[in-house]
Amino acid sequence: MPRYKLVVEYDGTPYVGWQWQENGRSVQAALEEALLAFCGERLRVQCAGRTDAGVHATHQVVNVDLAKDWRTDTVRDAVNAKLKLAGEAVAVLSAELVPDTFNARLSAVKRHYLYRILNRRAPSALERTRVWQVPQHLDHGAMHEAARHLLGRHDFTTFRAAECQADSPVRTLDRLDVERIGEEVRIHASARSFLHHQVRSMVGTLALAGTGKLTPDDVRAALAARDRRRCGPMAPSAGLYLVGVDY
Amino acid sequence: MPRYKLVVEYDGTPYVGWQWQENGRSVQAALEEALLAFCGERLRVQCAGRTDAGVHATHQVVNVDLAKDWRTDTVRDAVNAKLKLAGEAVAVLSAELVPDTFNARLSAVKRHYLYRILNRRAPSALERTRVWQVPQHLDHGAMHEAARHLLGRHDFTTFRAAECQADSPVRTLDRLDVERIGEEVRIHASARSFLHHQVRSMVGTLALAGTGKLTPDDVRAALAARDRRRCGPMAPSAGLYLVGVDY
Repeated sequence: MPRYKLVVEYDGTPYVGWQWQENGRSVQAALEEALLAFCGERLRVQCAGRTDAGVHATHQVVNVDLAKDWRTDTVRDAVNAKLKLAGEAVAVLSAELVPDTFNARLSAVKRHYLYRILNRRAPSALERTRVWQVPQHLDHGAMHEAARHLLGRHDFTTFRAAECQADSPVRTLDRLDVERIGEEVRIHASARSFLHHQVRSMVGTLALAGTGKLTPDDVRAALAARDRRRCGPMAPSAGLYLVGVDY
Repeated sequence: MPRYKLVVEYDGTPYVGWQWQENGRSVQAALEEALLAFCGERLRVQCAGRTDAGVHATHQVVNVDLAKDWRTDTVRDAVNAKLKLAGEAVAVLSAELVPDTFNARLSAVKRHYLYRILNRRAPSALERTRVWQVPQHLDHGAMHEAARHLLGRHDFTTFRAAECQADSPVRTLDRLDVERIGEEVRIHASARSFLHHQVRSMVGTLALAGTGKLTPDDVRAALAARDRRRCGPMAPSAGLYLVGVDY
């Protein structure tokens, strides 16, 4: 059974999230049904990062074992044809053969997320489901300074969802950069792994630093408190993108 | 009656185009109904460029006369609130007071369009309605060279829709640049005014130069022929954006 690594892009808007759920359509279901239509087998795919409802990906990674030794271009093009036919907002960017030891989730050494804030008075007409629109002016310099305090190895209980199932709240944050490009404030976050809702919780808290409601030192104190009540309102899912996975 | 100039952004996907039509919802209708909801008057707006079905705008300009002397920020925010309530993919980016002599269409001295081609094998999951996906490799250098031949004052009959109502097929093309940014090929077009379907017709023809089906000289000959049959297949509306209007 040859193992394939697929890089997948999707618009999270119409889905209940990556994972199979009873209450709606998932990205995983869309992809597994396209694989079934392509090769006639009910296959399970394993992904690098289980994104929540409404969260997008420009570079999700999955592994899947096919019964036949298909050409990688054939896998990509045929699965895309099935996805298109089904009207899914999912596309396979590339397919490659990998050793049996490769596991999209367990082999990943770093995950990269991007969070996009549209910082202007007017709502977005073109990217309503792709950004978080914040009308108050955000001081991205203050946000970046606050972000410095979250870098490194910490107990991230403050920025962790109540329903998070990870064994430990300790994570090592390798990158948390805030930059402004015109009307857009972009937050880049990288780590080996993240807690459930960690990026959106950190972004919501950084936004309070951007409007001046919190100082960068307040953000440091919120982290040190290891108390979910010290977290800012969670940023909406629409602005979040899984943009890369390193192996 | 104070006159206001509004800069408007919209996602053209759900609309039949800018202009009122019997067969569906127009951007103009969405905007005029939001103005009615805001100030209780049935008003007509005049726009700089009547975009077709599926064409987007990051910077459409309209003028409208209001009965009352509203603050410009109030106009912007109140109309946006009504647009959002109605679920429209339209937003007012700014409002300003202008003299009675200002006319969004007649006062415009230059219009700027952007055409976005996603040049890769995989379809777009995130921008399905925002780009034209072309799987064959496009040589953007050849496209740019071909574009040189269309610059200046010409009879653009070759690149004009059969249903175009302009008195003359002569236009002066001030800019037609082709650039590549990663997987995206962008075409920038500027002129005082364009014929109906002119940009999409030129882009469709330039794409043939990009795949090598036409040489840049063939494109020059197609222009000189003043014959619609020499035009390439028209590029789809999804990739086209009205991005600016100069006064």
